Amino acid sequence: MRLGTLRLAAPGEAPMATVAVRVDDDAAVELPGVADVGALLAGADWRERAAAADGRRHALADLEPRAWAPPVLRPSKIVCVGLNYRNHILEMGRDLPSYPTLFAKYPEALVGPYDPIVLPAHAADAVDWEGEVAVVVGSTARRLDEAGARDAIAGYAVLNDVTMRDYQYRTAQWLQGKTFEATTPFGPWLTVAGAGPLTGDLRTVVDDEQVQHTAVDDMVFGPAALVAYVSQIVTLHPGDVIATGTPGGVGHARTPPRYLRPGQVLTTSVSGLGELRNDVVAEA
Amino acid sequence: MRLGTLRLAAPGEAPMATVAVRVDDDAAVELPGVADVGALLAGADWRERAAAADGRRHALADLEPRAWAPPVLRPSKIVCVGLNYRNHILEMGRDLPSYPTLFAKYPEALVGPYDPIVLPAHAADAVDWEGEVAVVVGSTARRLDEAGARDAIAGYAVLNDVTMRDYQYRTAQWLQGKTFEATTPFGPWLTVAGAGPLTGDLRTVVDDEQVQHTAVDDMVFGPAALVAYVSQIVTLHPGDVIATGTPGGVGHARTPPRYLRPGQVLTTSVSGLGELRNDVVAEA
Repeated sequence: MRLGTLRLAAPGEAPMATVAVRVDDDAAVELPGVADVGALLAGADWRERAAAADGRRHALADLEPRAWAPPVLRPSKIVCVGLNYRNHILEMGRDLPSYPTLFAKYPEALVGPYDPIVLPAHAADAVDWEGEVAVVVGSTARRLDEAGARDAIAGYAVLNDVTMRDYQYRTAQWLQGKTFEATTPFGPWLTVAGAGPLTGDLRTVVDDEQVQHTAVDDMVFGPAALVAYVSQIVTLHPGDVIATGTPGGVGHARTPPRYLRPGQVLTTSVSGLGELRNDVVAEA
Repeated sequence: MRLGTLRLAAPGEAPMATVAVRVDDDAAVELPGVADVGALLAGADWRERAAAADGRRHALADLEPRAWAPPVLRPSKIVCVGLNYRNHILEMGRDLPSYPTLFAKYPEALVGPYDPIVLPAHAADAVDWEGEVAVVVGSTARRLDEAGARDAIAGYAVLNDVTMRDYQYRTAQWLQGKTFEATTPFGPWLTVAGAGPLTGDLRTVVDDEQVQHTAVDDMVFGPAALVAYVSQIVTLHPGDVIATGTPGGVGHARTPPRYLRPGQVLTTSVSGLGELRNDVVAEA
């Protein structure tokens, strides 16, 4: 089952009103009165409610790409993970870490899966890609073991942790390069977790060139391990997001470094989870 | 003018219902129907509403200390600043920084001004104090200059950025040592900003021993500079908090290091802003 959030502009509604939808093979089916997947996940019966959705149907082929909002509009918490792909760590000659590197991103950073990424005029020179799997939490998670953490995962989506490298490295703490307003695409929808572990390939493509490609089961700390670890520190709530880290292939590590430029198209996909496609544009 | 949030257990209300109050010399006066200072600040007329408050009065002398909640219960964003006191940086032989070091804390970390700090059983060994001034945002702040940022500040409170040093230094990113559930006291109330710059002395005391003492105007990046800087990166909303950094005297930098122990009392004060007083207790 897939769950998304659509922007609506129906008569009498505010232009940016949104609604949660179940994303079927050919149509998105509204859950009337549920503003986004975050609001849906706040109820313990979210699986049943989503399965029973029978609101207005939108043929997928008729939907404007920009109609898709971030599935969770405003997570109460976004936890990001650094240095989490085994092959990339080993090829850099480093040891595998004992603990996950965690940092934050504020919810204002999120944009929809097909929204443009506007390069801020004062921070346009070193904007880099970081394709990632996003774990979305489905129930309150506090001091869980890995088995409990697995049950607390609602599902997965795609996220690109777009990073202003200049701001990231202005100081020792990365936050300021990671949380620029409206620069982190997230979506296109939440794919509800199945019984098995997450598998598939993560790919980041700039225009037609593949710049990142790895198997997502190469993570040092997998989704359940991350939820369990964070839950020892702070409560995770339904709709909270863990961005699980990026593999090798970022632009900053290349010789010479490469960054996103206006006119490019950034595509981020995970097999089975869908694809983000974002035009890179200069600020007006 | 001072603004706080009280926990209520009035007939028919949930035990943890809260209400915003104006804190007068002898009484706290309720703003009926306003759950906390964050909800108050969300309206542009918050100064007038607070000045006109005429709800139930609570004599300050009759209030239980634990009745005081964090003035903003759940800021949408807490931005913390590192390395921001001039004398401490210079005495360490470092250069003054060109940019503020920013990191995050999630709202679940907050506790009230007189709540106990419970040392988590799995993270009790290296818990340190960091007395700070908290800036509370009063209006939406986006790409402001310093003059605009000054107008966007609602006021100030006291905060202790209690830190698990072991978790802080497990990796290069500090977040996990900074955001343990219910360990950051904040309050006792918001003191509305006046026309002049913030002055006064910050003091942290463990039991009867003063461990930190500095003038708050020794910050490298003052409150308005910090709001202006963050607003270039991400929107600050009413009720958002910037914790402005701690001066010298933390326990981890001592020889030998010193940490908080069960049975101690941690007192954090800023002249003119009030005092936090928190029992340090072991987890049951």
